[in-house]
Order: sequence, then C-alpha cells, then structure tokens
Amino acid sequence: MKRSKKEIGKKVGTPPGTLIYTGDKREEFEITAIDYNASGYRKIKVKDIDECASFKDPSTVTWIDVVGLHRVDAVEKIGKIYNLHPLVLEDILNIHQRSKIEYFEDYIFIVLKMLNYDDKSHEIESEQVSMVLGDSFVFTFRERKLDIFDPIRERIENDKGAIRKRGADYLLHALIDIIVDHYYIILEKLGEEIEGLESEVITNPSQDTVQAIHKFKSNLINMRRSAWPLREVLSQLSKGDSHLITEALIYFRDVYDHTIQAIDTVEMFRDMTSSLLDIYLSSISNKTNEIMKVLTIIATIFIPLTLIAGIYGMNFKYMPELEWRYGYPMVLIAMLVIGIGMVVYFKRKKWM
Amino acid sequence: MKRSKKEIGKKVGTPPGTLIYTGDKREEFEITAIDYNASGYRKIKVKDIDECASFKDPSTVTWIDVVGLHRVDAVEKIGKIYNLHPLVLEDILNIHQRSKIEYFEDYIFIVLKMLNYDDKSHEIESEQVSMVLGDSFVFTFRERKLDIFDPIRERIENDKGAIRKRGADYLLHALIDIIVDHYYIILEKLGEEIEGLESEVITNPSQDTVQAIHKFKSNLINMRRSAWPLREVLSQLSKGDSHLITEALIYFRDVYDHTIQAIDTVEMFRDMTSSLLDIYLSSISNKTNEIMKVLTIIATIFIPLTLIAGIYGMNFKYMPELEWRYGYPMVLIAMLVIGIGMVVYFKRKKWM
Amino acid sequence: MKRSKKEIGKKVGTPPGTLIYTGDKREEFEITAIDYNASGYRKIKVKDIDECASFKDPSTVTWIDVVGLHRVDAVEKIGKIYNLHPLVLEDILNIHQRSKIEYFEDYIFIVLKMLNYDDKSHEIESEQVSMVLGDSFVFTFRERKLDIFDPIRERIENDKGAIRKRGADYLLHALIDIIVDHYYIILEKLGEEIEGLESEVITNPSQDTVQAIHKFKSNLINMRRSAWPLREVLSQLSKGDSHLITEALIYFRDVYDHTIQAIDTVEMFRDMTSSLLDIYLSSISNKTNEIMKVLTIIATIFIPLTLIAGIYGMNFKYMPELEWRYGYPMVLIAMLVIGIGMVVYFKRKKWM
Amino acid sequence: MKRSKKEIGKKVGTPPGTLIYTGDKREEFEITAIDYNASGYRKIKVKDIDECASFKDPSTVTWIDVVGLHRVDAVEKIGKIYNLHPLVLEDILNIHQRSKIEYFEDYIFIVLKMLNYDDKSHEIESEQVSMVLGDSFVFTFRERKLDIFDPIRERIENDKGAIRKRGADYLLHALIDIIVDHYYIILEKLGEEIEGLESEVITNPSQDTVQAIHKFKSNLINMRRSAWPLREVLSQLSKGDSHLITEALIYFRDVYDHTIQAIDTVEMFRDMTSSLLDIYLSSISNKTNEIMKVLTIIATIFIPLTLIAGIYGMNFKYMPELEWRYGYPMVLIAMLVIGIGMVVYFKRKKWM
Amino acid sequence: MKRSKKEIGKKVGTPPGTLIYTGDKREEFEITAIDYNASGYRKIKVKDIDECASFKDPSTVTWIDVVGLHRVDAVEKIGKIYNLHPLVLEDILNIHQRSKIEYFEDYIFIVLKMLNYDDKSHEIESEQVSMVLGDSFVFTFRERKLDIFDPIRERIENDKGAIRKRGADYLLHALIDIIVDHYYIILEKLGEEIEGLESEVITNPSQDTVQAIHKFKSNLINMRRSAWPLREVLSQLSKGDSHLITEALIYFRDVYDHTIQAIDTVEMFRDMTSSLLDIYLSSISNKTNEIMKVLTIIATIFIPLTLIAGIYGMNFKYMPELEWRYGYPMVLIAMLVIGIGMVVYFKRKKWM
Repeated sequence: MKRSKKEIGKKVGTPPGTLIYTGDKREEFEITAIDYNASGYRKIKVKDIDECASFKDPSTVTWIDVVGLHRVDAVEKIGKIYNLHPLVLEDILNIHQRSKIEYFEDYIFIVLKMLNYDDKSHEIESEQVSMVLGDSFVFTFRERKLDIFDPIRERIENDKGAIRKRGADYLLHALIDIIVDHYYIILEKLGEEIEGLESEVITNPSQDTVQAIHKFKSNLINMRRSAWPLREVLSQLSKGDSHLITEALIYFRDVYDHTIQAIDTVEMFRDMTSSLLDIYLSSISNKTNEIMKVLTIIATIFIPLTLIAGIYGMNFKYMPELEWRYGYPMVLIAMLVIGIGMVVYFKRKKWM
Repeated sequence: MKRSKKEIGKKVGTPPGTLIYTGDKREEFEITAIDYNASGYRKIKVKDIDECASFKDPSTVTWIDVVGLHRVDAVEKIGKIYNLHPLVLEDILNIHQRSKIEYFEDYIFIVLKMLNYDDKSHEIESEQVSMVLGDSFVFTFRERKLDIFDPIRERIENDKGAIRKRGADYLLHALIDIIVDHYYIILEKLGEEIEGLESEVITNPSQDTVQAIHKFKSNLINMRRSAWPLREVLSQLSKGDSHLITEALIYFRDVYDHTIQAIDTVEMFRDMTSSLLDIYLSSISNKTNEIMKVLTIIATIFIPLTLIAGIYGMNFKYMPELEWRYGYPMVLIAMLVIGIGMVVYFKRKKWM
Repeated sequence: MKRSKKEIGKKVGTPPGTLIYTGDKREEFEITAIDYNASGYRKIKVKDIDECASFKDPSTVTWIDVVGLHRVDAVEKIGKIYNLHPLVLEDILNIHQRSKIEYFEDYIFIVLKMLNYDDKSHEIESEQVSMVLGDSFVFTFRERKLDIFDPIRERIENDKGAIRKRGADYLLHALIDIIVDHYYIILEKLGEEIEGLESEVITNPSQDTVQAIHKFKSNLINMRRSAWPLREVLSQLSKGDSHLITEALIYFRDVYDHTIQAIDTVEMFRDMTSSLLDIYLSSISNKTNEIMKVLTIIATIFIPLTLIAGIYGMNFKYMPELEWRYGYPMVLIAMLVIGIGMVVYFKRKKWM
Repeated sequence: MKRSKKEIGKKVGTPPGTLIYTGDKREEFEITAIDYNASGYRKIKVKDIDECASFKDPSTVTWIDVVGLHRVDAVEKIGKIYNLHPLVLEDILNIHQRSKIEYFEDYIFIVLKMLNYDDKSHEIESEQVSMVLGDSFVFTFRERKLDIFDPIRERIENDKGAIRKRGADYLLHALIDIIVDHYYIILEKLGEEIEGLESEVITNPSQDTVQAIHKFKSNLINMRRSAWPLREVLSQLSKGDSHLITEALIYFRDVYDHTIQAIDTVEMFRDMTSSLLDIYLSSISNKTNEIMKVLTIIATIFIPLTLIAGIYGMNFKYMPELEWRYGYPMVLIAMLVIGIGMVVYFKRKKWM
Repeated sequence: MKRSKKEIGKKVGTPPGTLIYTGDKREEFEITAIDYNASGYRKIKVKDIDECASFKDPSTVTWIDVVGLHRVDAVEKIGKIYNLHPLVLEDILNIHQRSKIEYFEDYIFIVLKMLNYDDKSHEIESEQVSMVLGDSFVFTFRERKLDIFDPIRERIENDKGAIRKRGADYLLHALIDIIVDHYYIILEKLGEEIEGLESEVITNPSQDTVQAIHKFKSNLINMRRSAWPLREVLSQLSKGDSHLITEALIYFRDVYDHTIQAIDTVEMFRDMTSSLLDIYLSSISNKTNEIMKVLTIIATIFIPLTLIAGIYGMNFKYMPELEWRYGYPMVLIAMLVIGIGMVVYFKRKKWM
C-alpha cells in the first residue's frame, strides 16, 4: 500500500525529457547482454556501456538487461547509442508509470508492472519493467536484480522451445509471458486468502477480520490497477499493427487471453469480497441479539420474584401471610412456579 | 468453489506450446469415432490413434470424441495427424481456460465450459470441453466420460432431425446446444434455491441463511463467469465469419438467443439476491427490537414496585403507615394500580 | 414470480425445430381471421386450418389470430401453408422466449411479452405473443383468449383512424402499440404501490413492509427484463431495415419513444426503491433507540432509590437515622429530590 | 412527485394521431405572434387562428407562442395551416412526453421539459414545452402562461444582442437557452438543500432528516430524468445535421456544454447524497451506544451495592456484623469504596 | 465545497456573447507579455492593451498572461485585436465552465481547472485557466496572480529544455503540464489523508471520523469532476487534429498519460473509501456488543443473588433457616458459589 501511495509522486515543473530517477537509491547495477541466433549463444556482463554498440548486428538477436535505474548516466548513454527518444528515457527512469505501449518508427516501447506478493505484510508490491523492442534487440530496464527472467535465460542457453531460432519479438513475448505468469501466482495467494477470510468471517469473526477484509480489498484494488492497463498493452500487441511483431503475433494473443482470464478472476474476487463485510455485520448483529435474549430472560424471570421477596420483607404490622404456618414455603413454591412458568413460556416463544 | 480457485493455476515459465495436462490424474481414456453421412453410419472405438487418419475422407462427417486428457501423447498424435497448431493442443490440455473461439485457416478451435450442479455440496462444477471444427470433422476433447453427448449420438444413430444429412457445422451446433441446455438445468436449480432462500429469510432467518445466501452468490458469480465468455463465443459463431459454418448459421443464432436469455436470468437472480441480506439484517433488527421492548416493559413495571416494597421494608422507628390496619392491603392495591396503569400506558403507546 | 422461474425451463437435448409446446395445457383454441381493405371487411372463425390458405390474396390485409398453442398440429399446418421456418414455429410454441425480432426473406418474426398485473397477488404476469408480418398478412399467436386485441378489432370494423386504408405493417404497429400501452398500465399500478410503500415505511414500518418492498423489487426486475428486449425489438423496427415496413415506419418510431419512456420510469422506480429499505432500517434503529432511552431513564432513576431503601432496610443494631423522629419522611424527601434531580438532568441532556 | 407518477399515464388503445390533451383542464388560452426582421418588429395577440397563415412570409422571422393546450381545436388548426404531421400534434397535446427531437422535411419538432422548483413543497415541477422550428418561424406550445419567455420578448423588442438580425434558428436557441438556464436555478436550490442536509445530518439528525434525504433523492431522480434526454436533444441540435440550423450552430454547442455541466452537477449531488443516509445511521448507532454505556455504568455500580444492602437486610438470627458498634458506617464506607472503585475502573477503560 | 456549489451559478436570460465576469471582484490586474525565439527573449508588463497588437509578429512566440478577469474591458479589447469569437470571450469571463477544448479556424480555445488544496479547510479549490493557442501566440487568462506559471517563465528565461527553440504549441504543452502536475500534488495530499483515515477508523473511530470520511468523499467527487473533462481535453489535443499542434504532439500524449494515471488514482481512492464507513459501523457495532456483554454479565450474576438476599429478608414468622446457627455464613457461601459458578459458565461460553 505505502508504495502505491508514493507512486502518485511526480516531478513538478521540470521540462519533459529531463532524466530523473524517481525510485529509491539502490546499490545494484548490472548490465547483462545475451546475444544469440540459431547457431550460437553469447552472454556478456557489460562493463563499459559503449560495448553495447557492438550488439547492433541484425543477424543475431540481442537482449540487454539493465538492472539499477539510479545510474541515470548509463540509461542516457544507451539511449544515445540506440537512438531512443528522450521521453522514452524519462519514462524508463520514472518508475511510477502506468503500463503502456508506445510505437516509434524503429522500436516499440513498453512499460509493465511486475507484481510480487510479500508474504509477511500480505501486500502486493509492484516493480516497473520497461522494455524496448527493436528490429533485432530487446532492452529490459528494471530497478532490482530479481530472478524473474532466469527461466528465459535458461531457455536461451538450452534453446528450449527453439527460442534461439526465432526473432526478437518472440523473446519479447517470452519476457512478457513470464510477467503475466506472476500475476497468476498472486491470484493464487489471493484465492487462498479469500477462502480463509470466508471461513473466518463465519466461524470466528472479530475486528481483525474486518481489517483483513479491508486489506484484501486494497490488494484487489492494486491488482486491478495493474491488470487493466496490462490488458490494454497486450490487446495492442496482439493486434499486430507493428512491422516489428510478425511470427510471435499468435503467441501474444495467447498471453492476451491469459490477461483477460486474470482480470476475470480479479473481478470474481471483488464480487465475492463485497458480501464478506455484510456477513460480518450480520454475525455481530446476531451475537448482540443472543446476548440481549439472555439478559432479558434473566431480568424477566428474577425481577418479579425479587418484588415478591420485597413485599414480604415489608414491615407492616398487619400482614396475615407472615403469621401463617406455611407462609414461607408457600411463597417459595409460588416463586418456583412463576419461575418455571416463565421458562416454559420462553421455550414456547423459542427464546431459549 | 474450490475448483474455481484452483482454476487460477497456470504453468509458470514454460515455453508456449509445451503440452502439459493441468487437471487431476484420471483413469478413463477413450476415443470414439463416429463417421456418417446421409446414407450410412459407423461407430468405432479407436484403439490405435493412427486409425484417426483414416477418417479424413471429406465425403463423410466424422466426430472424434476424446475422453481423458491425461494421455498427453494421444492428444499430441491427433494434433499431428490433423495438423493442429501447438498452442491449440496446449489449450486443450490446460483445462483452466476461459471459453473462447479461435479461427485458423482450416479449422475453428472452441473452448467451452460444461456446467454441472452438485446436489450434495450445492456447488457448480465446471468441466472444460474443447472442440475443433474442420471441413468434415468435429473433435471434442474432455476430461471425464459423462453422458452429456449421448443424446447427440442417438440422434445420429436414428438420424433424428435429419442430422445425418447435414454437415459438420450442424454437428458442432448440436454439441454446443446441449452444453447450453445444461446451463438451463442449473438455472432451474438456482431458481428453486433462491425461492427457498426468499421464504427462509422471511420466515426463519438464521446465521445459516446468511451462509446459504453467500454460497448462492458465489455460485451466481461462477455461473456468470462461465456464461459471459460463452455468449462471446456464440456471438462470434452466429456472425458467420467463417467459411466452415454455412447452413448451420441460423441454428447458431438460435443458441445465441438461448445464451442471452440464460445471462438475463443470471442477472435477474443477482438483482434478487442483492436484497436478501438486507432483509435478513432488517429481520434481525426487528427481533432485537422486540426483545428490547419486553425487557423495557418488564423493567419499567417492576422496578418502581420493587422500590415501594423496599421503602416499606425500611426499619425506621416512626413509619406511621406500618401501623395502619389496612396499610398492607393498601400498598398491594397501590402496586396493582401502578402496574395496571403502566400496562395501559404501554398499550396506548402501542408497545405491547 | 413463480412464473418467471419456470420460464427458465427449456427442452434439453431435442433437435432444433422439434415442435413442443412448453406452456400449461389449456382448453381454449380459436383461430380468427380478419380480412380487410379500404373498401371492405370480413371476420371469419376458422374451423379448418386449410381455409387459411385462402387469405393469401395480397390485395387484402389479413390478420390471423391464433389462440391456444397446445394445438401444435394447427401451428404446424399454418407454418406449412405460409412457409414459415421450423425454428420460427418452435419459437412460437416455446413460450419462454426472450422478446426478439428476426428477419426472414418474406416475413418478419417477432416475439413479445404481454404484461398483466394481478391485483390479488400483486405480481406481474407475462404472456408471450408471437407475431409474423408478411407482405399482406399478420399472424398473432398466443396462449390465452384475453381481450387485449379487441380495440384493434373494433378499429378495423369501424375503420377508425383509417386503419383499413393502410397496410399490414400499420396493423402490426397497432398490435404492438396496444401491448406497449399495457406496460403503462402496469407502471401506473407500480407507481401507486411505490407511493404507498413510501408512506408506509415512514409512518408505520413493519416486517411486512420489508416483504412488500422485496416483492416490489422483484416486480421491477421482472418488468425490466421484459422492457429492455422490447426496446431492442422496437429499435430494430423503427430503423426501417425491412422492405415489409414502409409507411408505418414513423409510427414505430413513436412506439419506440413510448418504450424508452417506460424504461425511464422503471429505472426511476428502481432508484426510488433503493433507499426504501435504508429508511426502514433507520426507522427501526430509531425505535430501538427510543426504547433504550426509556429503559435507561427508568433504571437510572429507580435503581439508586432502591439502594437507599435497601440501606435503611438493613438490620444493624446501631443505625442512628432509624431512631430519628423524622428519619422516614426525610428519606422520602431525599428520594424525591434525587428522582426529580435526575429527571431535570435528563431533560437538560435532551434525553426526555 | 405526484406529478411524475401521473406522467406515466397514456391513452390506451386509441389510434395514433388521435388528438387528446392529457393535462389538467385550465382556463388560460392565448396565442401571441411576434413577427420581426432586422428593420422592424410586430407583436400581435392572435384571436382568429386563421390569422396565423399570414405570418408565413419567409422574409420575417415569426414566433408564435401558444399557451393553453386544452384548446385541442386551436392546435389542430395551426397544424393544418403549417402542415404539421398528426403525430407531432398528438405529441404536443400529450404533455407526458420524454424530451426529444424529430426531424421532418420542412421543420424540426422538439419537446422539452421546463423545470420549476416549488419552494413550499420542495418539489420539482416540470412543464412540457413543445417547439417547432421552420424555415422562418418558431412555434412554442405550452400549458401555462408563465413568464419564462419574457426576457426573449424583451430582447426582440430592444434588439438586444442583435437578435433581430438573425434567423429563426437563433430564436430557437434563445428559447432553449432560457429553459436550460432554469435548470441551473434549480441546481442552485438543490445545492443549498444538500448543504443544509449535510449539516443537519451531523448536528441534529432525526427521522425527519431521513425523509428530507429521501425527498431530495427523489428530486434528483426527477432532475436526471429530465436532464439526460435534454442532453440528447442538444447533442443532436449541435451536430448540425439539419439545413434549418445554420448560423446558430455554434450557439447550440454552447448550450450543449451548459447541459453537460448541469448533468455533471446532478451526478455530483447524487454521489454526495449517497453517503448521507450512512452518516445518519452511524450517528444513530453512536447515540444508542452512548445510552447503552450510561445504562451499563448505572447498573454495574448500583446492583452490587443493592446486593450488599439486601444481605444486611436478611433476618438471620446469628449475623455478627449486625451487632457491631460500627457495622453500619463500615458498610456505608464499603459501599462508597466499591462505587468509587468502579467509577475509577470505568474512567480507566474510557467508558465515562 | 462552497465554491463548487456556487459554481452552478450562471447568468439567466442574457443573450450569448454578453461579457459578464461571474467571479468575485478582485484587485489584481496585470498583463505580462513574454516574447521569444531561439535567439532572444523579451518580457513586458503591458500597460496599454493596444500594445498587444505589436506581438502579432509570427517570427517570435508570444505568451500573454492576463491576470484579473474583472477587467472585462481589457479582455474584450484583446478579443478584438486577436479576433476572438464573442462566445470565447464570454467563456473566459464565466469562470464556472467545465474544462473543454474548442477548435476555431485560427486558434484553439481551452478551458482548464487549476486545482489547489487548502491545508486549513482540507478542501480542494479550483481556479479556471483559459488558454488560447494561435499560430505563434498563447494567451492565458486567470483570476488570481498565483505563481503556478513561474517555472515556465524561468525555463523560457534560461532556455531550459530548449523551450525557446520550439513553437507556441510546445509552450501550451508546458503550461498544461504544470497544471496537471498540480493534480498530482493534490493526489499526494489525499493519499496521506486516506492513510490517516484508515488508521483512525480502526484505532480510534468517532463521529468526527465519519465527518472526515464524508469530507474526503466530497473532495474526491470534486476531483473527479475536474479530472474527467481534463482527460477529454488532453485526449483531443493528443489526437493531433489541428494544424496548430505539430512537433509538441508527442508531449501532449505524455501529458495525456499522466492524466489517465491521475484518474486511475482518484478511482482507486474512491474504491478504498467506500469500505471505510462500513468499517466504522462494524467497529461501533462491536463496541455496543462489548458493552452489552458487560451489562448482561453483571445483571446475570447479581440479580439472582439479590433475590436470595431478598428471600431471607422476608418477615415470615416461621422461617427455619433464620434460626440456624450457621444460616448466615451458609447463605453467603451459597451466594459465592452461585456467583463463581456463573463466572465459570460465562468463561466457558467465551463471554468474558
């Protein structure tokens, strides 16, 4: 949550194209280039950014993965070498972007949100991943060195799924696909959580449950906020408007289907959540009701008896009953009869 | 419910086109081929999948019904023989798909959700049925050997409704029609349930009612989630964009109408459910109110009388009333008068 | 309501075009043909369905009104004579259709819902009316012999509004117009009801009010469910896409306007209903609050006094006050002062 | 409100084009014709409707204002002279129309709702104004002789804003503009009312507040119901589809903007109202809570003390405390200590 | 809030194009002209409005910033010099406009709402800024001399971001960009507020919280009301329909993205707010419940004991227990046992 609120932040009053990194300062900085085609594969840790220029060769597909956006200078240099528009560079560095896609003459620029579920705080964290798809290269820019893209790297190494035989658009698809897959992981967690909430609200509702429901709702809201723009991006990609996306088009449609399904699930969760608070309230009402009943029964049974005791506790001189031999036991019996009569009455009225 | 949550599951990080069956392991495996035209009819239990190639003859309509998706190899082989795209095969095996339709050059691929109402758990179960419509063949792929398609098989055997004189598109229509019919069966069950809930919430509301309403809502949500994509699929089919659907077009429109009507009913149920919980809450409030009244009446009548008894129970030396000959009966009468007066007052205020 | 739930029913597993009447068995069966043109008018009770063929003459407009759909054979025969598609006949007999319009080459097929308000059960009943508009004829098919179309019959007899000078499309318009008019009658009833509910919920709310509101909502839901598809039908008709509708086009636009206005009113009622239950709940809360106040005041005033009485009822040997000459009246006065003081306090706090 | 419900009324079963006035019978009847062009201006009280024919001269703009729709004959005569379609005349007389616009070959027919706020009943009244725009004339038909159009009359007299130099379309714009202006007056009243409700619901909520909120909501619903169709009419007018609207087009766009802004405000009010009832309920809950606290505190403090008094009021022979010299004061002190202890406890628990 | 209600105000009955300033009278009046191109820069405080004509030179970009709309004469004069339509001038002076864009042949007219968050009253204030974009000039009209445009002025002075090398459309973009930036500042404030409300409603809910939630909601409503039309304006601008916007097009798309993101955030806040009041209510219910429990426990424990004390306080002659030697301690022990028994019972029932 905290994150999502900071995300509002934006640099006020600076001219567009001003390169400012809007995230937290971090240590990690690493540029990894993977260069491959059907026949070979090369993985290089880039030290000097000028090396990047050497990957421009269109006969191999190059994937340059930049981790650590606080190094504004590095991003700027890459931008210059590959001729990226200043606004693109600005968007890469401003990690509070909405997912979007932008078509340029020579490349496509994509901003996506990678989601992560923090098991401790039960909050959804999002990290921005920017991608640039060119003729024979894909750039990925991200803040933190997480291992999300490792499966892709392995697939390239082992040429699993014949990835090395295909173009840069297929690589882009594989990267986006893995991001969408992470949405499913979160949906699974949320699904477990909503199941827990459902049983909790019925068996053991407390004020904590209310807070948990509220937190769950906030998570859903965050999720939707990421999922809908993602859907737009993939809808665009699967339309095939760009000359840069050719053979991978059908795969993008596949990912698009996954996104719709994810959104369906989010909306289903939303619908299911909406009645949880009502159930909570109805269960609280029920409890109050139960307690009220007990109180009323106690009062209704004992108050009249107390009155009787009070009456025979009066100090009038002339109270004939007081003199009777069996006055006392008779009163006790009368009390018992009244008490039992009331209990019977309540049982009949189904109050007990 | 449980099912719907697992449905989120998806294979993370595998390349597209990887054939993995995502359902539960099952025993049943059976391929039935029905080959017919106006003049004849043949039904074969396929043992060796290579036999399937022999049905390619375009002069007869062939319906190949594959039960048991855990046999990934079988599905793959069929895919090869009939030249199906790897993504299609992947979708057939991934039983957590959203209903959808995809047009290929030589065939149409359809994923549908078959719904079943479990009378014991009061839950809606869904099973995925994938269909491939070709020039002269229809494939159906499903997990479990249920008897849903038996009526169609009979119609072909007896040539009821002249089904044998028509093409593969008409067969597809018949199969989809029967799936849509099952939606109506469930709607009928839900209709009975909502009627029960309505009378329960009014005559005998309890915390169980709340849970039943919640479960009913979840069922409706599940139902909607299946019905809306179904509608999309049928809308597509009834538009007649494909050369594979010709004479059956008008029949698809008919099924489309049925789907819309089903959705109408689901939405009507949704609207009707929405006020059930409110009625429950208002009825609980009413009960609390009734109990409060009883308590207040009891307290208001007896507490003052108890005070009077208390007063004459005081041990002051000089209390003239205590010496009076008729002090005691007078006090009793006074108590009676006060008590009756209060009852009259409450009756006038319509509290009793 | 009951009706609307049965309406879900649908024949499962039969081939399309199978003629099955889905309504209740009834006795009434009657075919009335009215044949007219500017110069003349003829009304015939059709005994033998083959007579119908004689009305095919395009120089006169023929209106054939079929009452009693349980006579499947009759409907089938008419279908054959006038060359109606089997699916049309099936839809005529299946009285659980959604309102719709279908264009065929030689005729237009329309299904509408005629609404009736049952004054006893306060429920909206719907009856299906199917219509077929041909070049020079209109068919109406309905279950029950109600008198809804009598005004049209009279207009034809008396040539009121010059109906006899106009074509079959104008006749169709007149028939639909009268159906839409009945929606207005129901809206008037509902309008009265909502006014009654509004004053009831404010002046004299009870659990019955809640049920009445719920029933009213269900009626509205039913009404909407009929009105929206009706709107679609009339929108289609007023677009003038068919060569069968010519001079009557402007009149269909008029009816379309009426339908929109009816829907507007239904939606207005919906909006108005939505807050009724809230008002009910707030009024119950208020009542509980009032009762709580009374209880609290009684308890707060009398419990301390009872304590005082209790104290002087103690049997200690050495209690100097008990010996005082004016101890008793002093205690009584003290009690009075405390009681009055509390009343004053509560009045100041605006609790009384 | 009452009005809005009667508005449902519609003549059932009459042929279209039957001229029936559906409003209340009134006395006022007046036809005023204003004839002007850049050079001159003429105002005539029309006695004989046939005079109207003389205004047909296209070189001057004529505005004929008909007040009093109960004179069906007059409307019919005008319709004949200016060749208006019977359905138009029917719509003019049926004052329960939805706002709409209809294009005919020679003229445009517009129905609008003029709104008025009744300061006494706090209800919005609507009056129907029908307008016909021809080549060089504008008709206005309305029920009551209100002074809403007086500013326009004055502007024509004084040629303010050069209105006399412009065509009939500009006149139409001026008339509609003044109707839209009245929506703003009502919005201002509603704005004041919602402000009042907001402070009332917080400072002094009562059952009356609930009713006032409900009435306010009904007013908003009525307002919306008039505003949205008005928007449609103006959207149509500002599209410039008709040859009758030329130079005034930009002014219609201006009025269209105003209408959108009015709708924005209505929707804003709707949003703001939605939480008022919730606040009311929460404030009632709070009050109940407060009262409960007082009751509980009183009971909790005094009931134990009463028990102590009761114990020492028992008549056992052997109760040593009763014989003690300082038994009585010790008990009193004990009571005091217990009472104070409880008050302290409650203060700590923040209950007091 | 107050502002937003006054905003409804509109001049009733005046002809369009009548120039009336609808805001509050103010003192400030200032016209600043900035004239620049790549090579130079000139800033002039305009005294005589006729000077403005001298800036018409298309070789330099001119930005004329008019503060103080009460000087209707000045606005009118500028309108005449630059040939602006009277309706444009009217809209500039009517500060209660909805954000909009209007295309004219030679210029584009834009109305925007500048938002400000008043930290004291926690209310959002809006100020109208009208802009006119011509071939080589931009006009800005506003009521108050705030410093919002100072960063732009500085950028022009220092040619930061090469603004001086670009055209008037880029200047317009810079001005709008800064207005949109202010929306983000407000979103940040609202974000902080909603976080505060969330923790308040859980830890320390009071009637004040309800009011704060209501105020927050009103602020959101206001915000939405400004943001959506703003989005429309920017959507229009980024479509590039006008010949006046050329090289800045891509920058407008950037601002459009920001606007969508802002709206996303507003909608997210709306979703989050919706459950706050529910949580409040549930927390109040919980408290009432707690108090009820205490009351019931006290009453249930002490009332029976009081009855016992009352019984042995009765004055019957023959009550054997009273004579017993250990009658008194036995009763006390009995009371203790009953009391402890009840406490144990309640503990088992989890009431304590």
